[in-house]
Amino acid sequence: MRTATGWQADGTTTLREASISRRDLRRDDIAVRVDFCGVCHTDLHAVRGHNGEDVLVPGHEFTGVVTETGADVTAFRVGDPVAVGNIVDSCGVCSLCAAGQENFCREFPTLTYAGTDRHDGTTTLGAFSREYVVREKFAHPLPPGLDPAAAAPLMCAGITVWEPLRALGVGPGTRVAVAGLGGLGHLAVKFAAALGAEVSVVSRSADRTADAVRLGARDVVVSTDPDSTAAARDRFDVLIDTIPVPHDLGPYLSLVAMDGTLSQVGYLGSLTVETMDLLLGRKKLTSGGSGGLLATAAMLEFCASRGITADVEVLPSARVTEALDRLERGDVRYRFVLDLSDLD
Amino acid sequence: MRTATGWQADGTTTLREASISRRDLRRDDIAVRVDFCGVCHTDLHAVRGHNGEDVLVPGHEFTGVVTETGADVTAFRVGDPVAVGNIVDSCGVCSLCAAGQENFCREFPTLTYAGTDRHDGTTTLGAFSREYVVREKFAHPLPPGLDPAAAAPLMCAGITVWEPLRALGVGPGTRVAVAGLGGLGHLAVKFAAALGAEVSVVSRSADRTADAVRLGARDVVVSTDPDSTAAARDRFDVLIDTIPVPHDLGPYLSLVAMDGTLSQVGYLGSLTVETMDLLLGRKKLTSGGSGGLLATAAMLEFCASRGITADVEVLPSARVTEALDRLERGDVRYRFVLDLSDLD
Repeated sequence: MRTATGWQADGTTTLREASISRRDLRRDDIAVRVDFCGVCHTDLHAVRGHNGEDVLVPGHEFTGVVTETGADVTAFRVGDPVAVGNIVDSCGVCSLCAAGQENFCREFPTLTYAGTDRHDGTTTLGAFSREYVVREKFAHPLPPGLDPAAAAPLMCAGITVWEPLRALGVGPGTRVAVAGLGGLGHLAVKFAAALGAEVSVVSRSADRTADAVRLGARDVVVSTDPDSTAAARDRFDVLIDTIPVPHDLGPYLSLVAMDGTLSQVGYLGSLTVETMDLLLGRKKLTSGGSGGLLATAAMLEFCASRGITADVEVLPSARVTEALDRLERGDVRYRFVLDLSDLD
Repeated sequence: MRTATGWQADGTTTLREASISRRDLRRDDIAVRVDFCGVCHTDLHAVRGHNGEDVLVPGHEFTGVVTETGADVTAFRVGDPVAVGNIVDSCGVCSLCAAGQENFCREFPTLTYAGTDRHDGTTTLGAFSREYVVREKFAHPLPPGLDPAAAAPLMCAGITVWEPLRALGVGPGTRVAVAGLGGLGHLAVKFAAALGAEVSVVSRSADRTADAVRLGARDVVVSTDPDSTAAARDRFDVLIDTIPVPHDLGPYLSLVAMDGTLSQVGYLGSLTVETMDLLLGRKKLTSGGSGGLLATAAMLEFCASRGITADVEVLPSARVTEALDRLERGDVRYRFVLDLSDLD
């Protein structure tokens, strides 16, 4: 076993610096010096829900540099910049893995933290840590030109909105709404606009208009203003709902056009929808989260070609608790990224 | 006003024969002698939920003969066979009406019974009656060659499953499952098979296999048999869920293929779905009911060309209470149709 330093939940609302174990490299593993790791709502939920018993180290969207390679590794060399997301393994043989959708693996993919390693049964520990050991297959080369801090959130927030946008055929002529302008939402706006769609943001306040337009949107539908929502009724072919707390889907479905789709991203547990909100207009509800390796590689290539990264606020990793508190209050534009170099 | 005889709910579980009012013909109205009217689950829900106060006459899928025409009627003459479904008016000017989707009218369509007439504000009374008065626009010529008793259920059960099959692009190569083999389900099997799809039935019992195959299915997935459902996991591009009572959607979503759609038809109120059941495979949930005039006309033409009608059990209308009781027990293959001639 190897040891690394990381930020570990202890059942309170703070994380403490701790020495954690990493596995010795298997033949197809690489060791990564973690430089930057984004802070996701999933981390917040994990920390807030933690019972203090199991070891929990959050963090599942990170960039860094390869420091060591297993005997059979062919895709990476020491010194290569890499990016890793929220999935680090899968069965590899089911029809969904074979289709490049490891995120839908029939045996369930191995999550980057709080997952169960498929070989030794240990619980995976995340990248709020200076080192991560990962199968090379689940690491991506970080394309040149992408800032490693601002690219880290692409690996979870980014791919989570990229997948539905692509699966739903968003492109020129598509009318896309993005509800919630946070870590996921602001990337959804950037992606959809870069894909050529007509993009609107749905927000509780018109205050976000300037920011929405800067990100690529044409306008803002103000969800608290009945005139604004009435004017946008049945308007959007695709609505990406990134609101990170349970909410009534009805008002958002009312904005979806006939035969359009509301894609709810970010895990909210049970979803309840009124039949009539789907029926009147034959609207569809789907849910997204994460993405497969093929789609992730395509997203990174697209981002490199268009110069797209997240808008981030970088904090030393020692301020992780502050980042979680401010994320909980929605006080971030648009993604916190921890700089792990303070753990050296 | 004109008077007709019909079967009226009185707040108990029985319907009684009563004299009811019909409006005098407006310029674009036709009067129809109702010959046959199907018995729908909606009728059952309406009768069981009736408080005995408002006048309730169920019945919204019927065939008959034109007996009188308004001054401006051009599409029908006295003596023409006609078919009418569960919508008898709509605003006619909204974008959805303009698109031929009167069933999604932004002002809500006028239902054939228990709706509110857009002109005089009266409550509409259904076709468990010897006469119905309807705008000619909402009546369809009954194509020659279709048995009027067996064609009546096409107008609600039929169009309700036809719309999602067509909207979801079902045709050769599509793998379609139909859950629930009742009035709607058996027509969904016939339609999907005639459209060239590979059709399976999902049923609680393998007893339905012979019937399912006779209707056009290849096989039956037995929902109570874990081996059967496991073998059919992720198999279907489209699953039409016609089960008429609230149920867990999870086991049915597990049968849907990646990027496939579960279309729940028949009104069940709120639908609850687990995020993971949609997320793992990017599956979609939608809901259907009824259809627009264009789709209804296309369905009737298709049925005439393929000789498709419902499998019906025809009863004199005086046995309507028995029909509702047996429908509630699922004791019908596959649709009761009332013969209204006993009201003469």
